[in-house]
Amino acid sequence: MRNQVRALVTSRNWEVCIIGVIVLNAVTLGLETSPAVMAEVGSFLRLVDQVILGIFVVELALRLYAHGLKFFKDPWSLFDFSIVAISLMPATGNLSVLRSLRILRALRLISVVPSLRRVIGGLVAALPGMGSIVVLMALVFYVFAVMATKLYGEAFPEWFGNLGASLYTLFQVMTLESWSMGIVRPVMDVYPYSWLFFVPFILCTAFTVLNLFIGIIVSAMQEEHEAEADANRQAIHDDTGLILEEVRALRAELKELKAEAGKTRT
Amino acid sequence: MRNQVRALVTSRNWEVCIIGVIVLNAVTLGLETSPAVMAEVGSFLRLVDQVILGIFVVELALRLYAHGLKFFKDPWSLFDFSIVAISLMPATGNLSVLRSLRILRALRLISVVPSLRRVIGGLVAALPGMGSIVVLMALVFYVFAVMATKLYGEAFPEWFGNLGASLYTLFQVMTLESWSMGIVRPVMDVYPYSWLFFVPFILCTAFTVLNLFIGIIVSAMQEEHEAEADANRQAIHDDTGLILEEVRALRAELKELKAEAGKTRT
Amino acid sequence: MRNQVRALVTSRNWEVCIIGVIVLNAVTLGLETSPAVMAEVGSFLRLVDQVILGIFVVELALRLYAHGLKFFKDPWSLFDFSIVAISLMPATGNLSVLRSLRILRALRLISVVPSLRRVIGGLVAALPGMGSIVVLMALVFYVFAVMATKLYGEAFPEWFGNLGASLYTLFQVMTLESWSMGIVRPVMDVYPYSWLFFVPFILCTAFTVLNLFIGIIVSAMQEEHEAEADANRQAIHDDTGLILEEVRALRAELKELKAEAGKTRT
Amino acid sequence: MRNQVRALVTSRNWEVCIIGVIVLNAVTLGLETSPAVMAEVGSFLRLVDQVILGIFVVELALRLYAHGLKFFKDPWSLFDFSIVAISLMPATGNLSVLRSLRILRALRLISVVPSLRRVIGGLVAALPGMGSIVVLMALVFYVFAVMATKLYGEAFPEWFGNLGASLYTLFQVMTLESWSMGIVRPVMDVYPYSWLFFVPFILCTAFTVLNLFIGIIVSAMQEEHEAEADANRQAIHDDTGLILEEVRALRAELKELKAEAGKTRT
Repeated sequence: MRNQVRALVTSRNWEVCIIGVIVLNAVTLGLETSPAVMAEVGSFLRLVDQVILGIFVVELALRLYAHGLKFFKDPWSLFDFSIVAISLMPATGNLSVLRSLRILRALRLISVVPSLRRVIGGLVAALPGMGSIVVLMALVFYVFAVMATKLYGEAFPEWFGNLGASLYTLFQVMTLESWSMGIVRPVMDVYPYSWLFFVPFILCTAFTVLNLFIGIIVSAMQEEHEAEADANRQAIHDDTGLILEEVRALRAELKELKAEAGKTRT
Repeated sequence: MRNQVRALVTSRNWEVCIIGVIVLNAVTLGLETSPAVMAEVGSFLRLVDQVILGIFVVELALRLYAHGLKFFKDPWSLFDFSIVAISLMPATGNLSVLRSLRILRALRLISVVPSLRRVIGGLVAALPGMGSIVVLMALVFYVFAVMATKLYGEAFPEWFGNLGASLYTLFQVMTLESWSMGIVRPVMDVYPYSWLFFVPFILCTAFTVLNLFIGIIVSAMQEEHEAEADANRQAIHDDTGLILEEVRALRAELKELKAEAGKTRT
Repeated sequence: MRNQVRALVTSRNWEVCIIGVIVLNAVTLGLETSPAVMAEVGSFLRLVDQVILGIFVVELALRLYAHGLKFFKDPWSLFDFSIVAISLMPATGNLSVLRSLRILRALRLISVVPSLRRVIGGLVAALPGMGSIVVLMALVFYVFAVMATKLYGEAFPEWFGNLGASLYTLFQVMTLESWSMGIVRPVMDVYPYSWLFFVPFILCTAFTVLNLFIGIIVSAMQEEHEAEADANRQAIHDDTGLILEEVRALRAELKELKAEAGKTRT
Repeated sequence: MRNQVRALVTSRNWEVCIIGVIVLNAVTLGLETSPAVMAEVGSFLRLVDQVILGIFVVELALRLYAHGLKFFKDPWSLFDFSIVAISLMPATGNLSVLRSLRILRALRLISVVPSLRRVIGGLVAALPGMGSIVVLMALVFYVFAVMATKLYGEAFPEWFGNLGASLYTLFQVMTLESWSMGIVRPVMDVYPYSWLFFVPFILCTAFTVLNLFIGIIVSAMQEEHEAEADANRQAIHDDTGLILEEVRALRAELKELKAEAGKTRT
């Protein structure tokens, strides 16, 4: 029974069905954003949404039954599980924001379509190598945010009033959005030397992001290179192996000849 | 007859003539944007434009005659065909916008000049490898646009009033143009936690674009690498081949020697 | 005694303690930015800060004692030393800005955590190779700033009033922040041909930054490549060495055979 | 006499002197931007400037005498020549803008310092490979500018009033500066579908710039690669050459042995 269920939920047809349901759900949730459509067929769309949520719950239950506890070891299963769980939470009162999170179900497409899963897998695999640079970046942001709050917090409470505001403003400055006309020029009207704070910050973060970037490129190349270099070495090894064999055969024959010559002599 | 036409339309002289006509047309269409020039020689420019359009129609007809149905299998021929077809459509009433599309004929330069055709060919060849990431990007945009419409549509109808407006605004945010001072700070005045929506969106899309970028670089290198590695392997193969030959000759001689030695013995 | 102290300050446990103290200090200095927290436990936080500063002073003194004058040869030690020295300077009157520099102590994390030290080491190592391009960039900035001051200084004193203002504005233009709507369009209202100054400036700096960027990528790859190529060559050298050995043994045997044949003949 | 002059103008000391004069001139021209400094020592600075110009004229004359007509074949000499020529032109009336071009003399540093010359040489060498993409970019800009002038010229004369204005505005859009809040949103208020024009334009140019970029990186790597691959192949060739030599020696010896065996037999 369990094996049959497992065969079902891992079959190609099942996958296609689930993809179809996810895409249908994405479309209906998209249509729900239009008041005109909602006025026309709103109750029908809500019904479809309920039915699809039901299908997702059944699908998860089947997979849970098929794989047992191993289900919770697969990160993609956990991903599916949490997305469906969010949809099942009561979206009333303060939690009404959860209603808009229902569209996250469309992200289940990533866990179902293999090529998308591979792309995300690649992105996630690149993360650990970037660990040190991310920590460094966080440190730089924290140090500059504390300084900005101390230095400019009083005069510009909207931008640097507390640590959170400073972090957000510095993120904006890092993306170079209105950093000068919007932020630094007004600050410089009060503190003329504040460019000594912001220009180094921009150069620092630009340089760090650049290094993050280069790190990813180099490691992506490295991987690919290694595979190629191995193939290369193998090809050469085959070539030289052929010669070695030939030379060894030659040596064996010479030994034979020598033995015969010895016999002749005696 | 057909072969003669084919020889004509694929000859180097013909190509040069067509390039000349295209450039001339681009210049006259450029001049048409100036009211001063139009007041002076407007009717002459319009006449030239008509004549050139006639030349293009004749050229296409000749190529169609020369290549027969194979004409429609070449994407560049289809490109030329649709550009000329647009110019032939009646540009009256609601379709007056088609008049401004006449300048697209200048793009025929791409299909005529081989080096430009190669560049575009390279760009297009890079597209399929980017398929998964483009799908992923579209999915991320769709999910975030639906959420933005639900969350901020009521308060900011101009930016997030419907799915289309949200998609456009998110595209603007992705390009980092006025994302903070123009969009997110006003939104944060109403919904203080909206940075939890926009900052992850920026990081997500930046990371995805970065990966698109890296993917293209790595695959461009890979191609070039492979060609080089093949040349490398070939050179080594030649080297070792020389040795192998020599060793085999040696072995043949040894065999001869052995045979002679055997004869001597008997 | 000295050796014991040196063993202590380079031990793993000591490192962990210092990391803990630095993180704790970063947190307390972060909390000091919040007026609410300061009203509650301000005096306690200040006390903690004083104690931690004391710990840093003692730590530096121990390292100074342990390493002697060699302490001043290690750039990381100098880094730690200057950060602590800044904290010890009297932050009164005009120097009250120094109080906000206390958070720089959090940067000591870089000198203590090996992986962060490596990242910074990598960044710094990339700097000398960029020397020429940085000089070129500085030259381009200086030349354009002098010209901008001469040309637009009178009409736009806020942006181009003196060399410093021009350098800052050109830096803003280089980052593309509001370069057109904010700066160049207003300037073009007065000097219609000023785009002949700014567009080339943008292209120049973009091209130079691009080259800086490419230089760093290429040199990062080069390094990694060389290591790989060496390994490659070594593997091939081993392969061919094996053959060479075999061939030489063969030759020795042949010599023996010849000698024997000579003996036989006589 | 001519050889002596040539030895002088190519000597290391002469180079150092000229670098000194250029730097001094850059400083005095920088100081001239400050009204305070000019009020104090303005006449002295102008005198220094005249003297330095004299030195440059003499230096060029000497180089012209030393190298003869070959002087005009070296692009760097032409560069120096035109920079000095600009300074010698009468800067009165409409040409007063030429006075601000005097600071271009600081760029002579590039032609004198070898490492800077190499950087610029590298940049210029990268240009021809980018030819096709630059032509493509120009074509895309021209086509879009003609269309924009036709479509939006009447409603937005400041931005799209003529071909030049459209080209400038499209350049601004390409750099993503205020493209949406500043340009496209206002245009969309009049022509709601204008995003169909601007978003593809942004994607087109971004994609083309990206390819330009990748082309430069790949070709920079390729060059470096080839050098490395050659070294690699050479190393392997040396290895295999050693074996080949050994095998040939072996064969020669065998031939000898065979000859001797033949002699023995007879």
